[in-house]
Amino acid sequence: MTIPSKIDIENAAVRIRELVHRTPVLTCQSIDEIIGLNLFFKCENFQKVGAFKYRGASNALSQLSKEEMEFGVATHSSGNHAQALALAAKIQGTGAYIVMPSNAPVIKKQAVLGYGAEVIECEPTLEARESTLEQVIEKTHAHFVHPYNDYRIIQGQATAAMELIEDAPALDYIVAPVGGGGLLSGTALSAHHFSQGTKVIAAEPKGADDAFRSLEAGKIIPSVSPNTIADGLLTSLGTRTFPIIQQFVESILTVEDSAIIEAMKLIWQRMKVVVEPSAAVPLAAIMNNKSLFADKKVGVILSGGNVDLDKLPF
Amino acid sequence: MTIPSKIDIENAAVRIRELVHRTPVLTCQSIDEIIGLNLFFKCENFQKVGAFKYRGASNALSQLSKEEMEFGVATHSSGNHAQALALAAKIQGTGAYIVMPSNAPVIKKQAVLGYGAEVIECEPTLEARESTLEQVIEKTHAHFVHPYNDYRIIQGQATAAMELIEDAPALDYIVAPVGGGGLLSGTALSAHHFSQGTKVIAAEPKGADDAFRSLEAGKIIPSVSPNTIADGLLTSLGTRTFPIIQQFVESILTVEDSAIIEAMKLIWQRMKVVVEPSAAVPLAAIMNNKSLFADKKVGVILSGGNVDLDKLPF
Repeated sequence: MTIPSKIDIENAAVRIRELVHRTPVLTCQSIDEIIGLNLFFKCENFQKVGAFKYRGASNALSQLSKEEMEFGVATHSSGNHAQALALAAKIQGTGAYIVMPSNAPVIKKQAVLGYGAEVIECEPTLEARESTLEQVIEKTHAHFVHPYNDYRIIQGQATAAMELIEDAPALDYIVAPVGGGGLLSGTALSAHHFSQGTKVIAAEPKGADDAFRSLEAGKIIPSVSPNTIADGLLTSLGTRTFPIIQQFVESILTVEDSAIIEAMKLIWQRMKVVVEPSAAVPLAAIMNNKSLFADKKVGVILSGGNVDLDKLPF
Repeated sequence: MTIPSKIDIENAAVRIRELVHRTPVLTCQSIDEIIGLNLFFKCENFQKVGAFKYRGASNALSQLSKEEMEFGVATHSSGNHAQALALAAKIQGTGAYIVMPSNAPVIKKQAVLGYGAEVIECEPTLEARESTLEQVIEKTHAHFVHPYNDYRIIQGQATAAMELIEDAPALDYIVAPVGGGGLLSGTALSAHHFSQGTKVIAAEPKGADDAFRSLEAGKIIPSVSPNTIADGLLTSLGTRTFPIIQQFVESILTVEDSAIIEAMKLIWQRMKVVVEPSAAVPLAAIMNNKSLFADKKVGVILSGGNVDLDKLPF
């Protein structure tokens, strides 16, 4: 497999059409007036399992043979990919083993268990995740589906921006959050293939700015002890996502947690939709860089809506 | 004016078509599975000003002559009608004077001020509201638009259920919250005129169950010292809403605040939409009466989404 082409993404869209929701693109006059531009929100918080991750998981599992799925599938994830793989496995009639860091939100763990998957907890480091997963796979012979460093995953995540471009043509920018880079690389590829005038900008928490530093350094800088409220963006870039980001992403804007919380509240209050902190990072970046986006048509991927209502930051 | 006819409601719908949002009807598989029925949520939390109230206010002001609007419009409201009238007045190019109880949520007061209206605070009793409003009208000569006891308001609120019926035909029930009865009487009239097989049931907080007691007594029992988290449902029924409710509403189900909070959390978590406590009262009533609604097609009016995120009940 190689970097997803236009046809790869179109094929992924056809493959998952009956499996995923075509989520709406919402606008919000009052937020537009506050910031001074035209925003188009792709609401992946309304996606199945409450996040875009279900696109990639569905696309990956739809390409597995019966033999490959015989012993189930396995992954490590801080949350939304876990739920996504668990539900996709259930729909495809196989089992799922999910390695989750011990600090993942309770609500995400409960959801994974609710989809019938087995949860294996580990320390909240990339090393612990990977070694625990290795043990699980050795024991179960389950098929590994990486949360982002996998072209099948990237193809699937790319379909969100593809739909956004269909519903809101001629965008000047699309802003997506970056954690491991699956959504961001897919978004950048879709803009490149389907809307060449649209620039893709990433938004990243300052407390987990490894992607920003990686782009500056020209090599992957691992995410070590990230500290941010955006619990979906803690991971490091991957060897498949980083080169795509290097080639097709315009820049990465970083934001403080306080700005993320402010943007999250604005979305809840004005749009009446529930987004998780990670999904508010793009709006926070836009609000911090108003002059860059002034009077532009800007697409935003609202990546997910899974929050623990008993642990809100306000 | 008389009780709104089929044509009156159809005319209201045409009159406000360009002024209001046609809000979506959402479904939620996981909530359906939890309760065991098919729910169709009419999302008036996505309406302008965040509540169905904008329908009635727009319909009322669209029927006023220039002379009637010369000195502005005035009302008393615990919140959403206040915002609705303030914005409708701004759109029509006139002023608005809003008498609000001192315990109305801060966010609702701020919104009213944001639409350029003047806010006059009073004690949180019906008597204080009415006497303060009288003084305001005497001083300003503004035109009074009652929050619910007005056929123009009832016509406007009726358009929400009319649209719900268009988008989700053959409903067994529609459940709407009841405060002063504007939304409920409009909903009941729309079901009667546009979907005769659909029964309308009201949902009311136990801590403000004056409508339930009024229906039992056969006369309007005023709401005295109501105590509920559902701050949009504190008012008494009116002389225009009560007879419609008596004739066209099947029954009123009352629910504890704890059940309202549980339903509110379920909507936020599973549907990823923000609703205010008053809007969760119907789902709370349905969850408390599962056998009544088992396997039925049930419409729910999500009446509004204006909550103070700094004062959440969870």
